[in-house]
Amino acid sequence: MAESETHATVRELYGAYSRGDFERIAALIHDDIDWIIYAPVGVFPFAGARQGRAAVLDAMTGIAEAFSLQSHTLEILVVEGDRAAVMADVGFEQRATGRLLRFRVANFLRVKDGRLIEFREFANTFDVVEQALGREMPL
Amino acid sequence: MAESETHATVRELYGAYSRGDFERIAALIHDDIDWIIYAPVGVFPFAGARQGRAAVLDAMTGIAEAFSLQSHTLEILVVEGDRAAVMADVGFEQRATGRLLRFRVANFLRVKDGRLIEFREFANTFDVVEQALGREMPL
Repeated sequence: MAESETHATVRELYGAYSRGDFERIAALIHDDIDWIIYAPVGVFPFAGARQGRAAVLDAMTGIAEAFSLQSHTLEILVVEGDRAAVMADVGFEQRATGRLLRFRVANFLRVKDGRLIEFREFANTFDVVEQALGREMPL
Repeated sequence: MAESETHATVRELYGAYSRGDFERIAALIHDDIDWIIYAPVGVFPFAGARQGRAAVLDAMTGIAEAFSLQSHTLEILVVEGDRAAVMADVGFEQRATGRLLRFRVANFLRVKDGRLIEFREFANTFDVVEQALGREMPL
């Protein structure tokens, strides 16, 4: 597969995400997507594994209901064949509290037929949970 | 820069790491390395930012004193130019307790002159902290 196609799809995805263009994102999600956000579901119910387009769009709706994206700065992009890895600095407003969360995420993506078919997301979730709850975890 | 050099250095690094070959790893760390493990320092004192080879070797000694690597399975490797991204399934034994920790890590690497000059590590640290402490965080 041409790396230029992977590049184009990834740029298009993050562009649509930054604009809040949910319809465009939906069009870029493959029917057979395999998706995992590695984060505690007790705090972030939209986290965990999702199989297929409908389940992923559901999870994305869950994210959008709880958080509003304030900023997304792509810091590292590595593309090889049909795969990409992204490190980004992200800011979210928690809708229920107005609290601002700021952290870095790592994404691994795989593209098939110009659409996203595999997605993995990592973040320093111990810190993100503390930011979301507005308090430190007792250790 | 040739991607083959980046590939070779990254393979060499993870190979040495899996064998516990600390001297070989040390030889592959650039003097001017810029290093961050995104994890809570209250639980993992070796986490956080380190600048320069001596500080990074110190952090790696801290990891090795607390944990013994049991398994390292490279699941995704993406290489472009002087950069690489890795997703791996890792297992560690916590030396003080014999507890086994199992989780996935995401690494972003940059290679210069055949050595590692930039490193970022992510994991689902909320889960990793629970595994390390042997109890669930109260939410």
